Amino acid sequence: MLEALKEQVLKANLQLVEHRLVTFTWGNVSGIDRDKGLVVIKPSGVKYSELRAEDLVVLNLDGEVVEGKLKPSSDTPTHLYLYKEFQTIGGIVHTHSPWATSWAQSGRDIPSLGTTHADYYHGDIPCTREMYADEIAEQYELNTGKVIRETFQHLDPRDIPGVLVNNHGPFCWGEDALTAVHNAVVLEEVAKMAYHSLMLNPSLHPISGVLLDKHFFRKHGADAYYGQ
Amino acid sequence: MLEALKEQVLKANLQLVEHRLVTFTWGNVSGIDRDKGLVVIKPSGVKYSELRAEDLVVLNLDGEVVEGKLKPSSDTPTHLYLYKEFQTIGGIVHTHSPWATSWAQSGRDIPSLGTTHADYYHGDIPCTREMYADEIAEQYELNTGKVIRETFQHLDPRDIPGVLVNNHGPFCWGEDALTAVHNAVVLEEVAKMAYHSLMLNPSLHPISGVLLDKHFFRKHGADAYYGQ
Amino acid sequence: MLEALKEQVLKANLQLVEHRLVTFTWGNVSGIDRDKGLVVIKPSGVKYSELRAEDLVVLNLDGEVVEGKLKPSSDTPTHLYLYKEFQTIGGIVHTHSPWATSWAQSGRDIPSLGTTHADYYHGDIPCTREMYADEIAEQYELNTGKVIRETFQHLDPRDIPGVLVNNHGPFCWGEDALTAVHNAVVLEEVAKMAYHSLMLNPSLHPISGVLLDKHFFRKHGADAYYGQ
Amino acid sequence: MLEALKEQVLKANLQLVEHRLVTFTWGNVSGIDRDKGLVVIKPSGVKYSELRAEDLVVLNLDGEVVEGKLKPSSDTPTHLYLYKEFQTIGGIVHTHSPWATSWAQSGRDIPSLGTTHADYYHGDIPCTREMYADEIAEQYELNTGKVIRETFQHLDPRDIPGVLVNNHGPFCWGEDALTAVHNAVVLEEVAKMAYHSLMLNPSLHPISGVLLDKHFFRKHGADAYYGQ
Repeated sequence: MLEALKEQVLKANLQLVEHRLVTFTWGNVSGIDRDKGLVVIKPSGVKYSELRAEDLVVLNLDGEVVEGKLKPSSDTPTHLYLYKEFQTIGGIVHTHSPWATSWAQSGRDIPSLGTTHADYYHGDIPCTREMYADEIAEQYELNTGKVIRETFQHLDPRDIPGVLVNNHGPFCWGEDALTAVHNAVVLEEVAKMAYHSLMLNPSLHPISGVLLDKHFFRKHGADAYYGQ
Repeated sequence: MLEALKEQVLKANLQLVEHRLVTFTWGNVSGIDRDKGLVVIKPSGVKYSELRAEDLVVLNLDGEVVEGKLKPSSDTPTHLYLYKEFQTIGGIVHTHSPWATSWAQSGRDIPSLGTTHADYYHGDIPCTREMYADEIAEQYELNTGKVIRETFQHLDPRDIPGVLVNNHGPFCWGEDALTAVHNAVVLEEVAKMAYHSLMLNPSLHPISGVLLDKHFFRKHGADAYYGQ
Repeated sequence: MLEALKEQVLKANLQLVEHRLVTFTWGNVSGIDRDKGLVVIKPSGVKYSELRAEDLVVLNLDGEVVEGKLKPSSDTPTHLYLYKEFQTIGGIVHTHSPWATSWAQSGRDIPSLGTTHADYYHGDIPCTREMYADEIAEQYELNTGKVIRETFQHLDPRDIPGVLVNNHGPFCWGEDALTAVHNAVVLEEVAKMAYHSLMLNPSLHPISGVLLDKHFFRKHGADAYYGQ
Repeated sequence: MLEALKEQVLKANLQLVEHRLVTFTWGNVSGIDRDKGLVVIKPSGVKYSELRAEDLVVLNLDGEVVEGKLKPSSDTPTHLYLYKEFQTIGGIVHTHSPWATSWAQSGRDIPSLGTTHADYYHGDIPCTREMYADEIAEQYELNTGKVIRETFQHLDPRDIPGVLVNNHGPFCWGEDALTAVHNAVVLEEVAKMAYHSLMLNPSLHPISGVLLDKHFFRKHGADAYYGQ
C-alpha cells in the first residue's frame, strides 16, 4: 500500500541525516496521499540507520493506524492537524536542527535579511507564541498544530513553508516530503546566517518588498525563471 | 571477568569519538556492576584508536585495581565517589566537549530554554561552585566528586543526568555507560543551542514547569509515550 | 569547442562542493576565453553531483548562447557585465557561502584585520550599496553587475578580487576560474575570522598599510617570494 | 640525511590537515636536530596532498640550505630565530587556524579560563605587540621571531608552548615537531572555548594559580601522574 509514497518518505527521512539536521532520533518526516486521505510517517524513536520502508506507519486523517506494526511518531497529531488545515501541502518535517531551534528557543521571528531567505520564504519566518499551560497539559501535540495554525492566520503556507514553535523547534512543509526537507535545510542555513548578520549589525531591518518579491518569484510561480 | 560490561564500556568510549566529543584522550567512560561492586574504566592517556577491551581497568569502590595492567583514568576517584553517592547510576562519562566546557568555564548554569533540554534534563544543568585551594591541592579528583555531590544536595541525579564542573568541563551519567554517553551528546547539543538563544535574546527565562514536565515525562517514567 | 576551458570551469564548480561553499545549487562559476570572446558558465539549477562538462553553456559577451542545450545560470548577466568591465579577470564565482553571506546581509565591509586577508585582498572587501527598487524590478542581474562596478570605481579588481553584494552574497574573481574559487575560499575564511575578531574586540581597526603591502606583495607581483 | 627527522616533520605537516588546522598551504612545521644544528622544514607553497619527505628542506641555523631542491617556507627566518633563542624546543608549527587567528587579529591574550588550557599552557597565551613599520619593511620574518622573543622575555617557552602574533596568527612549539602540532591543536580548542566562555560571561577572570598548577603538573614535570 502506498509503496511509492513510502519510498519517498523514507528517502526524505534519511536526507535529514545527510544534511545533518538530526541528532539521534530527533526528527520525523511525513507525506500525504490526498486522494486516499492517508498519511505515511516515521515510527517513534526508531534509529535512522535501521529505518526501512516497511517500518513506516500509515494513518488516516482521524489518526487511526491503517498499516504498520510500530507506533507512529509522537508528533503525529501535529502533522495530521496541519494536513487538515493546510490543504496545499503534501509533506511535513520536524527536527531539532540546531540553528533553527536556537531561534525557536529565543522566541524571535527570523527576519528576511537576504536573498537566500527570499528565494524560499516570502517574508519573515514566524515564531509561535508560547503555549498555555492547559494547551501543554492535554492534547499537547494537537495543540502544537493549533498554535502553528493560529500563527498562520494571515499567512499562506505556500509563501512561508516553515515555522518556529516557541521553546521547541522548527516544522517545515512543502508540496511533498522531499520538498519539505529541502525547505528545512534552507531554514537551517537562513537561521545560521541571520544570526551572524544580526550580531554584526543588531539594527538590521528586513530587505525591501521589491527584493523579496524578485527572489521569491525567480523560483516560484508562473514567472519563475530559475532552473531548467 | 565482567566481559559484557567491558564491551559496553569500550563501545561507550568509542562513541565519544563518533560523536566528536573528544580531542586526543580528553575523555573517559566507566560502568559499574552494582552486584559485584566493581567498576570498569578507561586507562589513563590511551588513544581511542588503540583502545581494546582488555586495556580497560577493573577496580573496586575502594579504588583497588582488581584487573588490568594499565593505570586507570586519572579521574577515577571522581567516578568512584559518584558511584557511591549516586546509587541509581550505572555509568559515568567525562569529556572536555567544547560547548559544555565553554559553559563550565563561564561559571553559568545552562538554563532549560527548550524542549530538547527538557526531553533529557528536568531543569537547569548546574555549574558547581569553584573549588577551594585546599580542595585542589590535595585529593583533587576526589574533591571534584564531592563538589558535584554538594551541587546535587537538592537534586536527583536521575532528573538531571549531568553537571558542569566550574573551570573544567562536564560529567554526565545514566543507568549505564551507553546512556551516560547519550546524555553527554544531549548536553553538548543543548549547550550549543542555549548559547545561541541567549545571544539572540539575553533576557530569556527558562521554560515553564508545565512544558518541562511534559517533555521530560514523554521520555521518562511510567507514563512515557515516546518510542516503541 | 573550448574543451580545456570547459574542463577547468567544471573542475572549479565541483571545488565549490569540496570546499563546502555551496548548499544545493546555490553557486556558479564561469570562465572566459578572451581571444574568442566566449564565456563558459554553469547551467541554471543543475545539481553539482550530476554536472558534466557537456552541460556547461557557452555564450558570447552579448549573452547569446553559442553552444549548450541547457539554460545558463540566472546570474549570467552579472558575469557578462563584469567580464566586460573588468578586462583583467578570467573567471568569476558566485556563492551563498555562509560567512561571506552573513557579512553581505549585514551591509558591512570586511575590514582587513590580519595577514590572511592581506595575502589575497589588498584592502577592505567592500559591500555594495543596497539596490534601488527600479534596479531590482528590471534587468536585476545586469544591475547587480553595475552596482559591483560602481563599488569598484576607485578600486582595481586585481587588488580586491571579490565583493559582497548587499542583502545577497559574494562574487569573487581571478585570472581564471580556479583562481576565482581559490579567492572565494579565502573570502569565506577571512569573513569567519573577522567576525570572531570583532566580537572579541569591537573597536578593531584595519591593519597598517605597511603590513597590508608586505603580505599582499609576498604573494603577488614582481617581487613575490612566496611559493616555488 | 636526517631521514628519521624528515619522516617526523612530514608526518607533523600532514597532521595539520587531519586536525583541520590549515586551508590550502597556510601552515608549516619544522624540526631540529640539535646535535647537528640542522633544521628540516616544509618547502614554500607546496600542497599537503603532494608533499613527500624528499621535498623537505634542510638548513643550518645560518639559513643556508644544506639539502633539498625546493625553496624553504617563507617563514623560515622566524623558525630559525626561535630555535636559536629557545634552546629547549625541538619543533615549531605555524598555521592560520581560524580560532587562534581570530584571537591574534583581536590583539588579545587568551586568558587561562579552564583546565583544558592549564593542562598544556601554564598561564595566559600572549599576543605580541603590533610590529613597527620598519620591522615589517625589512627582514620581516626575522623580526617576527624577535617580537615573539620579546613577548617571552619573562616567560619560559616550555611553560607556554605557543604565542599569537598580532594581526597574523599562532606559532606553537614543543620538544619535537609532533608535540608542536599537538600544542597547536590544543591552542585551537582552547581559543574556541575561551571565545564562547567570554561571550557568556565577559567579566571572567583567569583560573587560580592553584588550579593552573594542579593541571599543568598533572601532565608535565617530575610529579606528572596523567597517562601510562
